[in-house]
Amino acid sequence: MSHHTKLKSRIRADYPFILEYRTRWSDNDMYDHMNNSIYNFLYDSVINTYLIEHCGLHPPTSQQYGMVVHSHNNYFASIAFPACAELALRVNRIGNSSVTYEIALFERGVNSVKAVGEFIQVFVDRTTKRPNPNGMSTSLREGLRSILIKSHL
Amino acid sequence: MSHHTKLKSRIRADYPFILEYRTRWSDNDMYDHMNNSIYNFLYDSVINTYLIEHCGLHPPTSQQYGMVVHSHNNYFASIAFPACAELALRVNRIGNSSVTYEIALFERGVNSVKAVGEFIQVFVDRTTKRPNPNGMSTSLREGLRSILIKSHL
Amino acid sequence: MSHHTKLKSRIRADYPFILEYRTRWSDNDMYDHMNNSIYNFLYDSVINTYLIEHCGLHPPTSQQYGMVVHSHNNYFASIAFPACAELALRVNRIGNSSVTYEIALFERGVNSVKAVGEFIQVFVDRTTKRPNPNGMSTSLREGLRSILIKSHL
Amino acid sequence: MSHHTKLKSRIRADYPFILEYRTRWSDNDMYDHMNNSIYNFLYDSVINTYLIEHCGLHPPTSQQYGMVVHSHNNYFASIAFPACAELALRVNRIGNSSVTYEIALFERGVNSVKAVGEFIQVFVDRTTKRPNPNGMSTSLREGLRSILIKSHL
Repeated sequence: MSHHTKLKSRIRADYPFILEYRTRWSDNDMYDHMNNSIYNFLYDSVINTYLIEHCGLHPPTSQQYGMVVHSHNNYFASIAFPACAELALRVNRIGNSSVTYEIALFERGVNSVKAVGEFIQVFVDRTTKRPNPNGMSTSLREGLRSILIKSHL
Repeated sequence: MSHHTKLKSRIRADYPFILEYRTRWSDNDMYDHMNNSIYNFLYDSVINTYLIEHCGLHPPTSQQYGMVVHSHNNYFASIAFPACAELALRVNRIGNSSVTYEIALFERGVNSVKAVGEFIQVFVDRTTKRPNPNGMSTSLREGLRSILIKSHL
Repeated sequence: MSHHTKLKSRIRADYPFILEYRTRWSDNDMYDHMNNSIYNFLYDSVINTYLIEHCGLHPPTSQQYGMVVHSHNNYFASIAFPACAELALRVNRIGNSSVTYEIALFERGVNSVKAVGEFIQVFVDRTTKRPNPNGMSTSLREGLRSILIKSHL
Repeated sequence: MSHHTKLKSRIRADYPFILEYRTRWSDNDMYDHMNNSIYNFLYDSVINTYLIEHCGLHPPTSQQYGMVVHSHNNYFASIAFPACAELALRVNRIGNSSVTYEIALFERGVNSVKAVGEFIQVFVDRTTKRPNPNGMSTSLREGLRSILIKSHL
């Protein structure tokens, strides 16, 4: 099974953390479907919600925060306002200061996945804007390790 | 009771149609609260969902569609990602080709209203971009009259 | 001349500070014109650029920042991607802690104004989120007074 | 030279089509830099402007339009509101119905590139939402071939 086929076969059970986001009028572009750029907004939203709720991130003050250094996305089918999107998150790899998230977008009531992508974040120090030599903080590492394990069960 | 006080006292029961929208990471600006411009995105979303689900609007093909000619908004308190917003809709007035919506934004789990605004839409013909001399279509008028009545019960 | 007619007659010379913003693909909605919500994004952008460049505002650290408490907008004509928008700013009133901006949107190469709106900001303390009893800072007041005077020449 | 190093070494002269986009207040997220998702909005904007101005695309009516099936992006450095972004476009490959664009984001007044990504679009028929067996239309093919050639001079 090719990597592309594998991604296209993703199901909700592959993802330990799922949130529902109602699409917005402005998400649709002139072709009457959600614009490709909106996917990244939603990917960012589910990632940051996980970081805030399970990894102790407090965006306005945390000493470390994640900067996206790479993103990619494969679009298999469309979704359109006013549908509800389900954003599904897993973690594929954790490094010293970096993490690779995989995010899938489903539509409420539809089985097959609409899009699957990855974001690589590097956690940087708020002051230096560089990764900390000691790597990410304990609360980040523990929260991310928890979802990494659930992602590979 | 002044008009401002009246708006600030709005409760969910004043609105016949309510939808929940999860906030997105990008909704927050540098002050760690949802940017004022995002309110209009959400107002537009709840209005158009109502028009699609209850008034027969099909944005890519309908012969008539609504153009916003006026909008205003009063902001009473902040909301911030990753909270869930509840968008509440009522109709205050219907004219021959125009409708005045009132929209309120609540936060899930919080009683007091965060913001209340109005949008005035004029329904124009897709071809001429002008209002139809006969006014809005029957399906629009019936769907809007239905929520107008419930808004004034 | 009614207030509505007066706004519709606005010309570029009524505004001391003008910036050009290229429209984006996603600004258009399904009706092939810029969505009404995008106007507020652009109004916010020209206001904040003025505050940063002429009033000493540094959004990530300034002790005071502006919160929008009211906005309204009148839409006279459409603009569509990929046109260039010109955002024009004047200041109509300054209070102890508040300021009323008027913003107009023009299209490059087109004389008549597309939309005119107002934003009322209250400057609040970053810590207390309340207005400072002594009002806005000197650098804010001086920068705003400068454009207020030019707006009424 | 690795592929990553090659991308990081991109200069404006590698791109035949460049447009300037002023950043907007809402482009910045809580970390005081342009959010990663905004890059895709700008990539989409420069691509579609090229298609409209040089390939005969008319989004509301054209018989064929491009659907993004894959996107990826590498972020090398930040940009922040109120800077001006320069979006630079080249075409790396043209297939029967598909095109691979490469887009770079520069900041006005700064030499080194901020981010480089690719979008793959498949042109589909407006009615069937499937690629046309005869491939893309003549005007699309000619406009894209023109920038492809300039991209490889």
